[in-house]
Order: sequence, then C-alpha cells, then structure tokens
Amino acid sequence: MAPMTYRLVLLRHGESEWNAKNLFTGWVDVDLTAKGEAEARRGGELLRARGVLPDVLHTSVLRRAIRTANITLDVADRHWIPVRRSWRLNERHYGALQGKDKKQTLAEFGEEQFMLWRRSYDTPPPPIDPGDEFAQTGEPRYADLPPELLPATECLKDVLERFLPYWYDAIVPDLRRGQTVAVVAHGNSLRALVKHLDGISDDAIAGLNIPTGVPLVYELDESLRPVTAGGEYLDPDAAAAAIEAVKNQGR
Amino acid sequence: MAPMTYRLVLLRHGESEWNAKNLFTGWVDVDLTAKGEAEARRGGELLRARGVLPDVLHTSVLRRAIRTANITLDVADRHWIPVRRSWRLNERHYGALQGKDKKQTLAEFGEEQFMLWRRSYDTPPPPIDPGDEFAQTGEPRYADLPPELLPATECLKDVLERFLPYWYDAIVPDLRRGQTVAVVAHGNSLRALVKHLDGISDDAIAGLNIPTGVPLVYELDESLRPVTAGGEYLDPDAAAAAIEAVKNQGR
Repeated sequence: MAPMTYRLVLLRHGESEWNAKNLFTGWVDVDLTAKGEAEARRGGELLRARGVLPDVLHTSVLRRAIRTANITLDVADRHWIPVRRSWRLNERHYGALQGKDKKQTLAEFGEEQFMLWRRSYDTPPPPIDPGDEFAQTGEPRYADLPPELLPATECLKDVLERFLPYWYDAIVPDLRRGQTVAVVAHGNSLRALVKHLDGISDDAIAGLNIPTGVPLVYELDESLRPVTAGGEYLDPDAAAAAIEAVKNQGR
Repeated sequence: MAPMTYRLVLLRHGESEWNAKNLFTGWVDVDLTAKGEAEARRGGELLRARGVLPDVLHTSVLRRAIRTANITLDVADRHWIPVRRSWRLNERHYGALQGKDKKQTLAEFGEEQFMLWRRSYDTPPPPIDPGDEFAQTGEPRYADLPPELLPATECLKDVLERFLPYWYDAIVPDLRRGQTVAVVAHGNSLRALVKHLDGISDDAIAGLNIPTGVPLVYELDESLRPVTAGGEYLDPDAAAAAIEAVKNQGR
C-alpha cells in the first residue's frame, strides 16, 4: 500500500486595485481588477485541467481573496464545497504604510528601510493610528475580536504566529480527514505558511515570493511535511514569470 | 425591555439561464443570466440601503443560489460573513421534467396535469431515470449522501420534509444566537420554508410565489413565528410585479 499523503492547494488572490496602483494594501479591503478576475479564472482552469479538485476552502475575510476563491472554484465546478473564512488568513497588516505609494515610500525612506519593512522577518512598519482612514477601527467583521488580537502593524513573524493556530485547529483536521484543502489567501499569509511547511529560515524567507493566480500544490507526508520541497506550481512557467515581476515592485 | 425578536432574510436567486429559456430546472446546475446577476446586485443594494446586514449565510449547493449570494453580499459589504451550504436548501427536484420546456409540457400534458406537477403540494412529477442526461447521478457534490436520500423527484411536501431538519439543526441555532440569518435559495425551497413559518395550508401554498432578487425579511418571535404574517419585502413594488410575472410562466 502506498503511503498516505495529504493534498494542500495554495492560491494567492489575483491582481487587486491597489496592486495595480502600487500601494501598500495590508488589511484595506480593496477589490480585484479585471486582470485579477482573469487570473482567478485561469487558476480555476488549471485546477480543472489537472484534476486538482478541492473538497473544502479556507479564505481570509478580505474581498480580494474571497472573490478570487469564488471565481476560481466556480470555473473548476467546485463552487459548492464548504467554505470557512478567518481573519487569521488575512494579508500582513502593513501598519502606517497602508494606503501609501510603494515608490514614494522607497524614495522617502531609502532602499534599506524599505526592504526591511517589506521583507525582514521581524521588523514591522510603524503602527497605524486608529483614526487613520486606512485603519480597520470599527469594521464589523472584526467586532468579535478582543482588541488585543487586532493588529496595528505586523511583521511576517507576527503573521506566522497568528496564522498557525488556524493551521493547526482548522486546516490540519480537514487534511487528516483526507480532504483536498484549498487555502486562498495573500502574499504574506501564504509566505508564512510556506515558511512553516518547508522549514525556511528567517533569513531565506526574504527571497521567497508567491505569484498571484497560479495554484501551488503541496503533497504532505504523515508528519505534514512536503514530499517535494516548495510544492509544485500547476503552471511553472507562469509562476516563474510572475515571481520575477513581484521582485520588481516598487522600482 | 422590548421583546426579543429574530431576523431572517430570504432571497431567491436571480434569473437563471433556464428561467430565461422557460425550462424546468430543479437540480440541474445552471448559471445566472446577466439579468440574474443584476438582480443579485440590486438585492445587495437593498440590504445595504435598509441596513439589513446578515451575520451568516446559508445557501444550497447550486450555482445560481451560490453566485446570487456571493454577488448580493459583496454589494452589501458582507462578503466576509460565515457561509454554510447544504443540498437541503436545493430547489425542488423536478424529476423527469428536468430539462423539459415548460410550454411544451403544458401543451403535451394539459393544464390540469401541468398545474398539478407545478403547484400541488403532494404530487411529484414522474421520477427521473438515473441515466437521464439531466439526472444528478455521480455528481461529486452528492457523493457523501446515502443513496436513499438522493431524490429522483420531489413534490413540495418532500422539499419541506428534507428542508426542516436543516432549519432546526443549522438555521434556528444561528437565529437563537441573535444573528441576522440570510437564506439564499430557490423558489420552492423558500416556499416550503414560508409555508412552515406562516402556517400556510397545503391548499393555499399553491397560490404563493416568491419573486427573484428581492430580499424578504421576517421578524420572528420567541416561538419563531412571524411577527408580521408573510414578512416584508424590501422592495414591495418590485416584489408584486415579479410575483405577477412568475404566475404567467409557461403560458
């Protein structure tokens, strides 16, 4: 008998309005662009063509991930599967940078500070002011969260720490039941998960980018470690091209 | 202190491809038309304008209800609420009539038989053959159902009987927690629920139609009985016009 493996499908949402405008987004709830919708459809076509059919979906509570998941699953004829949403899958909270232009921020603070905020593992941007127009103060979707859980800024380490309880308590049980689990989320919440799965060091994670709209499939062994490090993109060429494009953001 | 009431929002999906073609649909998983999408957006605008903001969503496992819910909630800025789907909220299974033209069926079988199948409480159409192209044989979304639960045809009484366990076990607990519950479903699954809520007789239910795309809000008392019989449509004029149009289907 072949050893049992578990199948996890990661998908970063398609291009958002603020990706297109090159603004730091974080928890600001912007929509997909038409290009982002097309990426989501393409993701669904890849799932269907390759027979990677999720049994259950986990998303963040942000529109760009939810709409990507809705479109992708609709195209893959899996619109009817159970869905769970959690703020723990949200994008990294970008603190006071939310709503700021990436290029202007780079010019204002310089390459070193800019890259530290974008890519260092444990240096968060300055916290956002609760009265800032791009703060999440009073948003109904977070009303049930104790105030100490609602971040005012996050580094990647913070994201991993708030993501992991959901991984262990909500996603792993679905995997253990033998379900193909789809996680449709964000650049940094998925980087945090991949860091955990592949055991990537705090330094090396800085160099890892996850492209939008290309499903990344992990087969996991009994210990929930990847059978193949880094998983497998369903369209490797598109993934490589997209990763290159992300690297040049803010330039 | 004012007595506690519970708030339930019912929404019938917008026009589907087979509504537009005047075919019996039942469990066949057709998509919305552009008009149906517009109806769903209008439903979301009504919810937002009237401040009727669902805390949790229940849908069927059929695309036309799922997409209506996704669009409506997105417009109402409630895309992030928890969602549960169940086959128990599906449209009535139309048996051997699935895929048949309503006008042709009327001509072939005559007014009396046609109306009996469409509107009688306890006369189902003939069962669909498992090999029929419009049967749900082998569809993955029903794979976990014991075969004796998968219908081959249903009358409205059958729909009510398979809907009620979900009402009691999944929807009522959400209401009792004080949540505003949205149920986005189908003409006949919603008629079954309304029959139960308003205590409509087996005969009188034949005359009740529920329009597409207009949210119907019920305030329920401690016994989960409507404070106002029949609830309240958020756009009564549109509802009245749509009800009139449904009556003339198949003519």
